[in-house]
Amino acid sequence: MADLARLSMNTVTLRERWTLAQCIEGCARHGIPFIDPWRDKVAELGLNNAIRRFRDAGIRPSGVCRAGLFTTGDPIAIRDENRRAIDETAALGADCIVTVPGGLPAGSKDINAARALAADALAELVPYARAAGVTLALEPLHPMTAGDRSIWSTIDQVLDLCDDLGEGTGIALDVYHIWWDPNLAAGIARAAGRIAGYHVCDWKIPTIDTVFDRGMMGDGVIDIPAITAMVDAAGYTGPIAVEIFSAHDWWKRDPEDVLRVAKERFTAGV
Amino acid sequence: MADLARLSMNTVTLRERWTLAQCIEGCARHGIPFIDPWRDKVAELGLNNAIRRFRDAGIRPSGVCRAGLFTTGDPIAIRDENRRAIDETAALGADCIVTVPGGLPAGSKDINAARALAADALAELVPYARAAGVTLALEPLHPMTAGDRSIWSTIDQVLDLCDDLGEGTGIALDVYHIWWDPNLAAGIARAAGRIAGYHVCDWKIPTIDTVFDRGMMGDGVIDIPAITAMVDAAGYTGPIAVEIFSAHDWWKRDPEDVLRVAKERFTAGV
Repeated sequence: MADLARLSMNTVTLRERWTLAQCIEGCARHGIPFIDPWRDKVAELGLNNAIRRFRDAGIRPSGVCRAGLFTTGDPIAIRDENRRAIDETAALGADCIVTVPGGLPAGSKDINAARALAADALAELVPYARAAGVTLALEPLHPMTAGDRSIWSTIDQVLDLCDDLGEGTGIALDVYHIWWDPNLAAGIARAAGRIAGYHVCDWKIPTIDTVFDRGMMGDGVIDIPAITAMVDAAGYTGPIAVEIFSAHDWWKRDPEDVLRVAKERFTAGV
Repeated sequence: MADLARLSMNTVTLRERWTLAQCIEGCARHGIPFIDPWRDKVAELGLNNAIRRFRDAGIRPSGVCRAGLFTTGDPIAIRDENRRAIDETAALGADCIVTVPGGLPAGSKDINAARALAADALAELVPYARAAGVTLALEPLHPMTAGDRSIWSTIDQVLDLCDDLGEGTGIALDVYHIWWDPNLAAGIARAAGRIAGYHVCDWKIPTIDTVFDRGMMGDGVIDIPAITAMVDAAGYTGPIAVEIFSAHDWWKRDPEDVLRVAKERFTAGV
């Protein structure tokens, strides 16, 4: 039901088989208008080369992955890395950079302290993003990642940060991370005007890995069209990114097949 | 820091190695005053035999596991099974029966319909529980189980049900399921007077299974004493149950060692 004109392919979906150059060629061949590139893939190709290839292929980079990781080490090194990520996003002409906070610092069990640490580092980063004309797309990740990846677990938690920080921040909504939330509908409505990205995949039953076992849209239990309708109603008209971490299935398949199936499922079930 | 006088051993922690009779003997030997028994273990021993052995050993059954599963099949069969579960809980003289709703019905992607189905079936069950003098301890389970086990994911969601249904309902708080919640402190405060059970274990990093990879208290990242303090402040003075699903570690160990370590960790880190 979603229009292919909004399809963005996140490079992580193809990461084991294709370089960024191959992703750009492949998406161009399949008429996919956007790519959400990961920074390691951009670095591998070289930033200027990536910019040129995107331009030549007529493909727009949308959400770059990723910034943040505020809780994971030396604050100065993290700040500098995040500034580089923002510079790259601006150079690519992408709309936003997906920002995840990190989990608990090594050895810590104090989740509130980790939240405060991330909030402070984020606040320090926002003026830099604003000056670069880049939106930090803050992404709540599934609560099962709270320990080691993201101490932002809900839409409301991230919107509270957006309320505080204003321009330069927005929210990235990924159906995989938010579908279970009893405040889902109210949360998405509250996000109106601040949705910086929308990501799709599916929740499989069973799920055999807390990170690398996402499903293709339609292969799980998420009512994706219902969530898309909420996101539409909140006024979001931007790209919809297919982001599938799948060590056991999609990462092993021929990328041509992955793109073909993703396009079918995108029009049929997103 | 927790007092051993409040320790309850959930039989699931020992389930691969010990029958209920062995759990009762073992806990008596270790001076553990409560057991949270699973119904399959009670059935295996026979209800009357179980009642007699608990009494003879001077051990009190606390939270029975479990009732609910409202979304998982034929409503009449489920209702009848839940009534039997309540009758058994009353016969055992236990305080409550832990109640989990089930996930999405087979083939469904409508989580709101599943929630409504569970709420209706629960409402029908409450008068029966009340008449039996048994509290249904409604347990929010971790959001990673929303698809296949529990469409109740947060404290607030369960307390809304308790608000609606009143006497005969309460909440079971398990640190594993709730530790990530940004509303944790407010949620536990709101639960005051309605906490029917408190369960402990730990969240390991990495977690390699969404159900069967819980850690022993102290082996993960949950600040258990901080949560216990919140539960204490909310006025709960009942048993604290050690409930560890651990297919790869604790289920393989000698139950004597499991009890010994659980007692140490209970006094040191709960």
